[in-house]
Amino acid sequence: MTLHRAEKVIIITEKIIADGVCQILDDCGATGYTIVSAGGKGERGIRSTSERASVIAEFTNVRIEVIVNEKSLAEEIMNRVYATYFENYSGITYVEDVEILRPKKF
Amino acid sequence: MTLHRAEKVIIITEKIIADGVCQILDDCGATGYTIVSAGGKGERGIRSTSERASVIAEFTNVRIEVIVNEKSLAEEIMNRVYATYFENYSGITYVEDVEILRPKKF
Amino acid sequence: MTLHRAEKVIIITEKIIADGVCQILDDCGATGYTIVSAGGKGERGIRSTSERASVIAEFTNVRIEVIVNEKSLAEEIMNRVYATYFENYSGITYVEDVEILRPKKF
Repeated sequence: MTLHRAEKVIIITEKIIADGVCQILDDCGATGYTIVSAGGKGERGIRSTSERASVIAEFTNVRIEVIVNEKSLAEEIMNRVYATYFENYSGITYVEDVEILRPKKF
Repeated sequence: MTLHRAEKVIIITEKIIADGVCQILDDCGATGYTIVSAGGKGERGIRSTSERASVIAEFTNVRIEVIVNEKSLAEEIMNRVYATYFENYSGITYVEDVEILRPKKF
Repeated sequence: MTLHRAEKVIIITEKIIADGVCQILDDCGATGYTIVSAGGKGERGIRSTSERASVIAEFTNVRIEVIVNEKSLAEEIMNRVYATYFENYSGITYVEDVEILRPKKF
């Protein structure tokens, strides 16, 4: 087994567009992704409610992460998600360096 | 669209103080944050139960992430959360380098 | 308080083996870990259903993160999880550099 450098893209956005974001990941050739239910506050204010007390009760966002081999593919995914959705929906997308464990002949 | 270097602060702690931690984020000028419900085990032992089997059933922790532009602000947030809560509540806080996609004139 | 370099190992796999993975973390000497419920799609296809619409409804995976001081321990954890489970269960494991806030005499 060997560690391979890779890029992890994270997209945090509204749950209502999760399927559309995953479709973009598929279209870009990502082989897998992970979705977690999330709450929080964005630049447009606390989601779905004006009370902070309910932020952690109302999880109307998703945190999607996807690992890809190339930085160029990471940027393509981020740009497509941004261009498709982030004018009309709250969201952020960022990328991190990771090292993933894979068989040598991946 | 351009990638900008930024710092992601993660705070994993007890759900009961989530609102207080988010208040610190607001006070420090963070424009957004993401909260996920979490279970797990800390240095004080498995949370809320002595049985590991129920760890993933009982999500009494939160994982909060916030992205800021400057390392100094990241450290201020981490130090304030630590000083305010981590003597009396379980928790860890760490920081990672990320690159976030933003319009050029952010 | 001081920032210390550390390694964060992430394991994303099927919920059914979460206890076994946490046992490996304990056996390796990890002092804590965090578990989040997750959905998603892996190389073996969308988990538990053929419909993407239900991906975010059916969270049959877990995302486990654990922070350790040494890269060698990170790799030991990853290799043991991989060798024990990933022939028969879906999963990925990767590692990231982080800086964790700890008292100076940790």
